[in-house]
This record gives sequence, C-alpha cells and structure tokens, in this order.
Amino acid sequence: MSEVSAFIGIGRMGGPMARNLARNANTLGRRVRVYDKSASAITACKDAGADVADSLSEVVDGADVIFSMVPAGPDVRSLYMDEGGIFDTAPKGALLIDCSTIDVATAQEVAKAARERGFRMLDAPVSGGVAGAEAATITFMVGGEASDLEEVRPQLEKMGAKIVHCGPSGMGEAAKICNNMITGISAVAVAESYAIGQRLGLDPKILYDVVSTSSGQTNIGTRNPPIAGIVETASANRDFEPGFTIALMLKDLRLSQAAAKQVDQASPVGAAAAEIFALAANSGLAHLDTAGVFKLIAGNQPPPK
Amino acid sequence: MSEVSAFIGIGRMGGPMARNLARNANTLGRRVRVYDKSASAITACKDAGADVADSLSEVVDGADVIFSMVPAGPDVRSLYMDEGGIFDTAPKGALLIDCSTIDVATAQEVAKAARERGFRMLDAPVSGGVAGAEAATITFMVGGEASDLEEVRPQLEKMGAKIVHCGPSGMGEAAKICNNMITGISAVAVAESYAIGQRLGLDPKILYDVVSTSSGQTNIGTRNPPIAGIVETASANRDFEPGFTIALMLKDLRLSQAAAKQVDQASPVGAAAAEIFALAANSGLAHLDTAGVFKLIAGNQPPPK
Amino acid sequence: MSEVSAFIGIGRMGGPMARNLARNANTLGRRVRVYDKSASAITACKDAGADVADSLSEVVDGADVIFSMVPAGPDVRSLYMDEGGIFDTAPKGALLIDCSTIDVATAQEVAKAARERGFRMLDAPVSGGVAGAEAATITFMVGGEASDLEEVRPQLEKMGAKIVHCGPSGMGEAAKICNNMITGISAVAVAESYAIGQRLGLDPKILYDVVSTSSGQTNIGTRNPPIAGIVETASANRDFEPGFTIALMLKDLRLSQAAAKQVDQASPVGAAAAEIFALAANSGLAHLDTAGVFKLIAGNQPPPK
Amino acid sequence: MSEVSAFIGIGRMGGPMARNLARNANTLGRRVRVYDKSASAITACKDAGADVADSLSEVVDGADVIFSMVPAGPDVRSLYMDEGGIFDTAPKGALLIDCSTIDVATAQEVAKAARERGFRMLDAPVSGGVAGAEAATITFMVGGEASDLEEVRPQLEKMGAKIVHCGPSGMGEAAKICNNMITGISAVAVAESYAIGQRLGLDPKILYDVVSTSSGQTNIGTRNPPIAGIVETASANRDFEPGFTIALMLKDLRLSQAAAKQVDQASPVGAAAAEIFALAANSGLAHLDTAGVFKLIAGNQPPPK
Repeated sequence: MSEVSAFIGIGRMGGPMARNLARNANTLGRRVRVYDKSASAITACKDAGADVADSLSEVVDGADVIFSMVPAGPDVRSLYMDEGGIFDTAPKGALLIDCSTIDVATAQEVAKAARERGFRMLDAPVSGGVAGAEAATITFMVGGEASDLEEVRPQLEKMGAKIVHCGPSGMGEAAKICNNMITGISAVAVAESYAIGQRLGLDPKILYDVVSTSSGQTNIGTRNPPIAGIVETASANRDFEPGFTIALMLKDLRLSQAAAKQVDQASPVGAAAAEIFALAANSGLAHLDTAGVFKLIAGNQPPPK
Repeated sequence: MSEVSAFIGIGRMGGPMARNLARNANTLGRRVRVYDKSASAITACKDAGADVADSLSEVVDGADVIFSMVPAGPDVRSLYMDEGGIFDTAPKGALLIDCSTIDVATAQEVAKAARERGFRMLDAPVSGGVAGAEAATITFMVGGEASDLEEVRPQLEKMGAKIVHCGPSGMGEAAKICNNMITGISAVAVAESYAIGQRLGLDPKILYDVVSTSSGQTNIGTRNPPIAGIVETASANRDFEPGFTIALMLKDLRLSQAAAKQVDQASPVGAAAAEIFALAANSGLAHLDTAGVFKLIAGNQPPPK
Repeated sequence: MSEVSAFIGIGRMGGPMARNLARNANTLGRRVRVYDKSASAITACKDAGADVADSLSEVVDGADVIFSMVPAGPDVRSLYMDEGGIFDTAPKGALLIDCSTIDVATAQEVAKAARERGFRMLDAPVSGGVAGAEAATITFMVGGEASDLEEVRPQLEKMGAKIVHCGPSGMGEAAKICNNMITGISAVAVAESYAIGQRLGLDPKILYDVVSTSSGQTNIGTRNPPIAGIVETASANRDFEPGFTIALMLKDLRLSQAAAKQVDQASPVGAAAAEIFALAANSGLAHLDTAGVFKLIAGNQPPPK
Repeated sequence: MSEVSAFIGIGRMGGPMARNLARNANTLGRRVRVYDKSASAITACKDAGADVADSLSEVVDGADVIFSMVPAGPDVRSLYMDEGGIFDTAPKGALLIDCSTIDVATAQEVAKAARERGFRMLDAPVSGGVAGAEAATITFMVGGEASDLEEVRPQLEKMGAKIVHCGPSGMGEAAKICNNMITGISAVAVAESYAIGQRLGLDPKILYDVVSTSSGQTNIGTRNPPIAGIVETASANRDFEPGFTIALMLKDLRLSQAAAKQVDQASPVGAAAAEIFALAANSGLAHLDTAGVFKLIAGNQPPPK
C-alpha cells in the first residue's frame, strides 16, 4: 500500500469526505493523509485512519492523488499557485482534484496552470450537504479529462453516490452553479408564493398540495416549503435551522452571476434572486436556512385591513 | 332530464370542457346549453350534444348550474354584474361556477355580489391546458362553499381528473396564481441557466441530467427545457410552438402581482420574472411557448472571444 | 358673488389647497364650500372663510366648479359614480377637477362617464407636498380640454405656482406618475450608491460633491441624500421624518406599474424599485421619508472584515 | 527640462489626455513620453510634442511620474505587476497615476503592491467623455495620498477642469462607480418613463417639461432623453450615436455590482439596471448610446388596441 491520497481542507464538508476515504484505505489500497490550517478536524480524521501532516509540503509529499476542499476561488488560487503551494511542492504528474465550489474562470485558470506545470487536474464540486458527505451520498460534478476521472473514480465512489462527467475543465463548476442558480431562484419564488397566499388567507397546506403536484412543482418547494407543519423535511419546522444557509446560497448565486458576466450573458432573474439573498444577509438572516428568506419576504407587518 | 347546465364561453378551453359535459348528459341526467358571443365554436358543441342559445338570457333560462369561462376579470365582472347580465337574468338560487383565471379581488367581489343577489358561486379556475381540457384531465382549483362544490362535483369530474377545494371564495384563483407564479419564475430561471451554460460551453444534455435530478429540479425544467433534442415534451423541439404562450404566462404573472398588491405583499422576483415576459412580449415573442423566453435571454449576439 | 366652488376632501393636501382658495374668495369673486367625511379639517377651512357643507349633495348644490382630492382610484370612482354621488347630484355642466393622484385608467374612465353625464372634467394631480400646498407653490399637471383649464386657471393659480396642460383626459395623471416613477427609482439608486460607498469607506460628503455635479446628479439625490449632515434639506438629518413617505412613494410606483400594464409596456427597473419600497413597507418602514429606504438597503449588519 | 512624465495607453481617452499634457510641456517644465501596444495613436501624440517609446521599459525609463489608461482591472494588474511590468522597470519612488476605470478591489490591491515595491500610487479615473478629454474639461476623481495629488495637480489641471480628492487608495474608483451607477439606473428609469408615456399617448415634450423641472429630474434625463426632437444634446436625435455606449455603461454597472459584492452590500436596483443593459447588449444594441436602452424597453410591438 505504497500509494497516498492527500486531502487538504478537512472542515464541514472536506472532513467527512476525507474520513470516508480513510475508512476505505484497505479496500482502495492507498493511505490517506490529511492537512488543514485549522487543527480542529484532525482528531476525527486520525480516528478514521488517516495520517496527519503538519504542512502543505508534507501532506503532498509522495502523493499521486491530491484532493482539496477550500472556501472560495482566491483560496484555490493561493493553495495551488502561491510560492510554496501545491504546484511548487507536489510530485509532478500527480492528479489534482479540487472539490471546492468556486467560480468557473478560476477553476479553468488553475487547471490550465496545472497542465503547464506538469499536473493533471479535475474540478469536482459536490452537492448533497454535510449529511450527504457523512453518508457518502453526495454527487460529484466533474470537469476535466475523462481518463483522469476514471483513474480516481474508485475513490470518489467511496465518498459519494453519483459521479457525473460534465466536460472539460470548469464544466463541473459550471454544472453545479447552473443548477444551484435555479435552486436559489426557486427558493425565493416559493417564499413569495407562500407569502402572497398567506396574506390572501390561503391555507398553506392546500397551497402545498396544489404546487407540489402541478406546474409550479420544484425540488426545493416540495422538500423545504417555508411554512412549518407541512412536511417533515422543511427547515421551517425548526426555525429555519440550516441545511444550506442563506450565506451559502448567496455565495452560489454570486458564482452564477460571475459566470454570466464571464461570458457576457444577461441573467436578470438570477440577479434579482441574488440581491434578495444579499438583502436577507444584510438584514441579519445569513445564518438561517435558505427557506428562511421567507422572513425577509413576508416581513413583520400585518396585512392591510 | 329536466335539469340544465349552462356554459358560457366555449373558446379554446371552455369549448372542450363544455363538450365533455355534453357528451355525458345522459349519465349526469342534465342537458348542457352553450352560449358564446363568437359563433365559431358552436358547431363542435352541437355535435357533442349541447343545446345552443342565442343570447345570455336564453342560455341561463331555467338553468340551475351555470359555468363561465372568459378571458379576464373585467369580462367576468361585466358578464355577471352588468345590466342584463347573469345576476339579472339567471334563476335565483342557481349555482354559478366561474372557471376563468382572473384576479382574486374580482373573484371575491363578484362572489360577494352573487350572494347578495341570492346566488351561490364558486371560483374554479383550471390548469392542464387545451389538451387536458380535451382529455378531461385538467385540475379544478375551487373556492367557495364545500357543499356547493359537492353538488357540482359529478359534473366537474366529467371535465377534469382532479378537484381541489382550496377554501372560501377567491381561494381557487389564489391557489392557481400562486402556483403559476412559481412556474413562470422557474421558466426564466431555467432559461437563464441554460443560456449561461451554453456560453460556458456546457453540454445542455449534461446540464439537463444534473438539474433534473438535483436541487434545481423543477416541473417546467424537466418537462420543457429550452433546448431542442433533450426531451420529447420540450417545445424547443418545435420552435417553441405553444403549449402555454408567453402572453398567457405574462397574464398569470400579472395576476399574481395584482394579488400581491391587493394584500400589500412584496414579490420582487415575481415582479422581475413578469417584466422579463413583458419585455419578451414587447419584443415580439408573445405567441411563443413559455420556454421561448430563452430567445430573449440568450439574445442573438455571439459570446465574447 | 353668486358663484360657488365646491371642494371635497380637505385632508393633508386638500385642506391647505381649499384654504388658499377660500382666502382668495373676494379676489376670485366666488365662495368656497367644503365637505369631508372626516370632520377634523373643517375648523381650519371655516377660519379661512370657507362655507361648510354637511353632505355631498349639499356641497355641490349650485356649484359650477367642483374640486376633489381623495386617496385612490376606487375613492374617485365611488365619489363620482356611485348612486347619490357627484354625477347624480351636481348641477349639469359643472366643471369637475379631480386633484387626486390615481391610476390613468380610472381617471380616463371617470372623465368619459362625466362627459356622458353632461359634465366637463379635468384630472389635475399636484406635486410639491404639504408644505407646497400651504405655500401655494405646488404644480398642477392637468389633463382634459384646454378651454376648461383656462376657465379654472385663476383658481388654480391661487393654490399653486405652476400649471401644465399635459393633454387630454388622463394625461395629467400620466405626467405625474411618469415623473414620480423616475423619482422613486432615483431614490433607491441613491440609497444603493451611498450604501456601497459607506461600506467601501468613501466619505459621503465627497460622494455627494461628486454625484451632485456629475452624470449621476438627480433632484432627489441633491435635495434628499440618505446620510445626515450633508445638506439641510435631507430627511436623514431628522431620522427620515417625512416629507413624502415610503408608503406614498410605493403608491405612486404602483400607479406607474399599473399604467405600464394598462398599455402592455415592460417596466423592469420601475418594478424592481416598487418591490424594494414594498419590502421596506413590509419591514415596518412605511412611515419614513422616501430616503429612508436606505435603512432597508444598508441593513443592520457590519461589513465583512 | 530633465523631468519626464510617461503616459501608457493613448487610445480614445488616453490619447487626447496625453496630447494635452504634451502641448503644455514647456509650461510644466517636463517632457511627455508615450507608449501604446497599438501603434495607431502614436502620430497624433508625436505631433503634439510627445516623445515616443517602443517598449514599456523605455517609456518609464527615468520617468518620475507615470500615467496609465487601460481598459480593465486585469489590464492594470498585468501592466503593473507582471514580470517586466511597471513595478519591475520604473524608477523607485516614481509617482504612478492610473486613470483607468476599474474595480475598487484591484485598484486597492495594485496600490498596496506599489507601496510595498517602493512606489507611490494614485487611482485617478476620469469622467467627461472623449470630447471632454480633448477639451481638457474632464473631472479627475483621485484616491491616494493628498500630498501625492498636490505634486501632480499641475499636470492634471492641463488635462482636466476639476480634480476631486476622494480619500485613500481606491476611493477615486469608488466615487466614480458610485456616481455612474446612479447614471445607469437613471438612464433606464428615464427610458421606461418615456416608453410608458408614449404608449399612454403623452406628448414626450410635455413629459420632458414636467420631468426636467420636478422631482424626477436627473442629469441624464435632462441632457439625453430617449426621444428625438426635444433637446439638441440628446443622442436620440442621431439614432443613438454615442456618446457613452451601452457597452461602457454595462461595464460601469458591473464595476458597481462588483464593489457591492466586495463589501457584501445588496444593490437590487443597480443589479436590475445592469441586467437590462446586459439584455440590450445580448440583443445587439451594445454599440448604441446609453439612451438607446430605450429601444430594448419600448420594443417593436404596437400597444394594445
């Protein structure tokens, strides 16, 4: 078992992913070595069988596969391209898999630089949330060479349930943010629909029954309507405890807006939804679940007499 | 078979509905008598077994159930409340069922006036389109007294497959437009998503696979994506031949905006979507299927180098 | 002095207007007679020399000129067209001047009905606020026959400083709401500009200096910037004490949106601004001055580190 | 006259600015030396008395003041920070003045890097257009140290008529884009107002008279209304020949949106206006004057009967 997978960034999402990899080290025939600037998640990974590195250069040392999961585009650029970063320290020819959700342009730029530096690189953002990362049910949306994806597929299958090859570099990110843009817009659409219905005196359970079986049906509306007492999965039952926060949805909507601007494409309703989440965040709701945008929309004022 | 159902407004939707009623006259034990200001749809209804009236007063004469299906709120107000209208000419105690899709306020105002004039009234807008009206698979969303709905349920069941009691007067309209608002917003969301994906170089079939099985899933996106060659049901395969036109979606979005204003409820993303359909209509696309809003969004300019 | 001008609706705006008319009764050679459902403003008008009527029929009795100033379109329709309303009770041939700010469609409908009932009618909404009404410096935007305007001009000149004939019936309302739509949009634009500047660390006085002398100059931005301590006229100096409330601006933006819909014209940025004022109202800010929309936009959260 | 000012980027704006500097070389007691990747503007600068350099390193050689004017943020970053760029080649201590209109974050990042490399730097974007650059009437909005501004003020005064010190690094850009955001939003507001008025039958000259003297007054609406035949300065008189193109306004609105995102500030109406310009560009109108957004808004469809 001489082969090593490095995993950099073992926080809320990366942590459980790395642990699922570590737990399958024997099956996969490869060690897992983790590194994080913050030390907090180290113990859990150690318990799952991972080796622990104290520095970036140590974690990539001898690794032929390197996963990363960091918050944003500048973090990815810095992690890979800074002096002393992955490009400077990793073994030539290593397969780099960035699982961060970042803008398409940065994903493409870093992948291009990787090739120029003698590496292979995949962008492989995930969906499915922290619970899905724990349960290894997340989806990987992968951009890059199909052969590189095949090489790493056994490892991805230990971390997730579905792996979609979306095209060349950047297309994993593209697919994820094009999807999440619809999710975010739908979430506001659903919130507005229930807010109007509520003020009109329409029973939200009836509205749910109609919408979930008609042309207005959406995944988020069916799973996460903004009124308590309708379906178990709704964050509204738990005061909009996340799930996926407004802050994260705002981040994804901004990524889709950035992608639109990258290719000079108008996206008026995506922009409108992004701004509603921004207003919600500016109003102190950033930590709530996405469905909690209902609180901004519905407001705190009684309907007119 | 002394009882008579009158049906006023036998156009694209009302026509097939009235015919389904007429074809079941024996089963229901009641004659169907139709009337329309335009004479064009008369023959088809006659062939289906309906009696034909030459005037409003004639069609309602002796009818204990009166259906109406007209384009907009002012038409409903005029049909029922004008001098010589239904309130002046119909037998007292008749059950009035307005199937038009109109604003909630007008539906409530006319229903209130009906009660004051000694009638019973239901608002019962439908969804499911012309094909659904022909096939008797439409859904009725009904506002008004439950007992009145039960009385007329056998007739509704000959015209549609699903009947939902949504609450008191106006709530049928409320449920319909709260649903259709989400549909319209989703349609633009999907259009923007595919437009961004297209310019990024993302294969639309891959985007469809991701979106239709993820958090961005929507009824309209799964059934009617804006790119040809993905699914059979998509209007994009037929140059956006409708289906449900942009003009009609604009009408419904304006109804939901009117409902929002009626109760002083903000609806920012609904407003943004309504304006996109208005721009599409102003640009000459009103006759296309809803999914054709993609043409406005994607534009006719090449992406940047 | 046998001629009589009736004035119906002597609230915040109508009151000072009627008083200015009454104070000039001798000059104009005509008595002023007022009526209001609410009795509160009666005394002030009486002190200014007006006669007081106890009913609608009494106030219009023998009047050849009738002014009205009521809150909204339905009030105007009801005041003129209801049984026992002005059309039923006023002397035939009287010149009716409605100064209410209402939707164009209702103004046109009521004016048409007036002509059919043997009256002449002008729509004559005003701008300039309560202070302007007191000081007789308001502007009248007048729709209807030029000759009718000329007949009543001496009276308008006692109440206002500027009188613009805008065209046939409804065009007074059209001009007012087309103007106020720009005002409302500008107010949000200015709020967003200062909110961004503030978080960037830009001194608002410098921003004011730049904007008020550059392409971004707007009447409302120059007169009513949303930050205290820049110019004396700003409501921000007085915790956004109105001036012209968010509730009233929302009303006017909805009128412009209604006008857009009346003629099937898209108005996407007007709709976006209207929804921001609706969100502000839903958030409890309706009573603040228009510039107070800054509170919604800027939010209560600190900028990121 | 041993001192040298370098000027890099002598296109549509930079060219006339550099020429004004060159024409005043004797007064200022300093030579002007120009450089551009494109050779086209060289001759005109030579004729105005400038020296011409063949490379970046040549133009900055011995210069104690260096001006730059390039299209976008990445160009600025590359020009200053790339290997062989200004930071590598210019004399230490030189005063660098970037006149490009770029995002605040890049301006701040490059200025910080400049200080770390031993330079002084000002961001000094301009407004006033090509005609203003020719006539030396433009405005400079300057971010950076006041003492550095004073040092270069005599030169700026030969190129422009107004110089505003806006605060520390980045605040020149901040002031400009906060201003231009209001301009862009106003332009759409004005377009929508005239489009609604037109369909209502309101004479655009009357609308202009009302708006230009009321609360809806804006600099752009007064100077550049979207209907021909009202004021001489309107681009509508010349088929929307620019002036300032839709493409440039879109660029500036995107910069203001980027600034909003940089500091987590919602900007919903700015976003809506940006998307309208993006739709206009996607529809083939990018080359028209800003006021030409009216063509998208008004559309090509007749108003309803």
